[in-house]
Amino acid sequence: MKSDDFEAWTLLAQRSVEVALEDWVPSDAPARLGVAMRYGVLDGGKRLRPLLVLAASEAVHGLPEAALRAAVAVELIHAYSLMHDDMPCMDNDVLRRGKPTVHVQFGQAQAMLAGDAMQALAFEVLTPDGDAVPPALQARLCALLARSAGHAGMAGGQAIDLASIGLNLDEGCLRDMHRRKTGALLQASVLMGAACGSAQPRAWRALADYGAAVGLAFQVVDDILDVTQASETLGKTAGKDQHHNKPTYVSLMGLAAAHRHALELRDQAHAALAVSGLADAARLALLADKVVERDS
Amino acid sequence: MKSDDFEAWTLLAQRSVEVALEDWVPSDAPARLGVAMRYGVLDGGKRLRPLLVLAASEAVHGLPEAALRAAVAVELIHAYSLMHDDMPCMDNDVLRRGKPTVHVQFGQAQAMLAGDAMQALAFEVLTPDGDAVPPALQARLCALLARSAGHAGMAGGQAIDLASIGLNLDEGCLRDMHRRKTGALLQASVLMGAACGSAQPRAWRALADYGAAVGLAFQVVDDILDVTQASETLGKTAGKDQHHNKPTYVSLMGLAAAHRHALELRDQAHAALAVSGLADAARLALLADKVVERDS
Repeated sequence: MKSDDFEAWTLLAQRSVEVALEDWVPSDAPARLGVAMRYGVLDGGKRLRPLLVLAASEAVHGLPEAALRAAVAVELIHAYSLMHDDMPCMDNDVLRRGKPTVHVQFGQAQAMLAGDAMQALAFEVLTPDGDAVPPALQARLCALLARSAGHAGMAGGQAIDLASIGLNLDEGCLRDMHRRKTGALLQASVLMGAACGSAQPRAWRALADYGAAVGLAFQVVDDILDVTQASETLGKTAGKDQHHNKPTYVSLMGLAAAHRHALELRDQAHAALAVSGLADAARLALLADKVVERDS
Repeated sequence: MKSDDFEAWTLLAQRSVEVALEDWVPSDAPARLGVAMRYGVLDGGKRLRPLLVLAASEAVHGLPEAALRAAVAVELIHAYSLMHDDMPCMDNDVLRRGKPTVHVQFGQAQAMLAGDAMQALAFEVLTPDGDAVPPALQARLCALLARSAGHAGMAGGQAIDLASIGLNLDEGCLRDMHRRKTGALLQASVLMGAACGSAQPRAWRALADYGAAVGLAFQVVDDILDVTQASETLGKTAGKDQHHNKPTYVSLMGLAAAHRHALELRDQAHAALAVSGLADAARLALLADKVVERDS
């Protein structure tokens, strides 16, 4: 696949997600709740998780309506987790996607409620009335999303993160934390896309491996960018891992080794695609590259 | 139905919910997250929402496994909402079910995360692996729960509640707030139970009316108990509506009229059951009585 084609696909996919978010995140929810929800999710972000959903779905000839709903649902979960993570009782951050965080703009109570409502909205989006998405697929998508967002996935990883401040984790513990905190939802994005089509067991396992590798690579690169980039580039506060005394791949192995590790994980992602048996996985391969090569 | 039978059924139903919660709320979630989740939901509460699910399901000869899962899921959503509602940025309450609230016991960050994880867990419980619950029913239950918990239901009602402090709402606005904040999940409990069986359209509409009446009656009685009962009886801080200067049915219409209104709503609930065409709705009728007659 030419990189021009990939860029064009990316822009188109991002645009379709943006339009769907505009449509499905309510502007009229009561007492400015909808305004806070939209502030927290619209018009920002690279939409990496939705891109993974859509690319995986296309690789298995998935149902486009289901894939778009899955893409929006994972982004809603991701956005709610950022809103809660930025709260004073968690990371206490004031800058996100280049704007004041939701709790700064709307107050803590509204930020918490808007996040809560966005998690529920993710499951609403996955369960539309009518027959646009077969009910069995709706249930499968809800199952994958709930497990990746909950105690065994993202929320569990955040609990480990909180409990790890000031500790020296070994690589196994650090990997476990990140696999849950960031990796679970990234992997679920790939698998939800795969669920929208007819992935054979071999392809399913390969996509799970791909998703795990990309998920961890994303976090290793995040740790690197936190120390190498300025807040203006990231659109969020730089240097905060060190400021909060959090264990990271950089604090564990140093910058050069962390970078090598990210490249290894990218290679693992490529290798998983190679054994998947999927004819049309070029976009997934390029997304793995993008995760590792990004500068923000 | 004799009241002895009803009491025995209630105890048995509560016990089955308690056992299921014990089984399905993980004790081993990382970094004490599971401990906080279990603290917030086990061993307390009247389990009214699960009782409504189970009674409605029995009235339509619903699938017991699906009904038990629905019962647990609504209780998880209810419990998470209390955990977040008690946070300092919301109601700032320190007493719940006769114990220190979750944020007092585990800290604010853990309370927020445990609530987040419990919302996800509700959707996990509704989407079990295997064929114990047909996928189409899983999807239907997720759809009902998500809509009642989100911006148009519970979370939206809480946003109105927050925005209404110190305001004099008229009865229409107060009813709208409570229909969302408390009523939506109570009504969803009834409808999720109904979805577990084969409710005909007439029965479905009647159960929706029953659920709406019981949902509002519950809140009117809550407003009454807040001024007439001591904290020890309630297991939560009494008098807090007035303390927070929140509009209530008591502040709007006075104690006697609020009590009459609760009785009217109970009668509406009974009337809805009478037109439902359901042969076996006695437990639902008695649950409506219980909601109005409770003293805590």
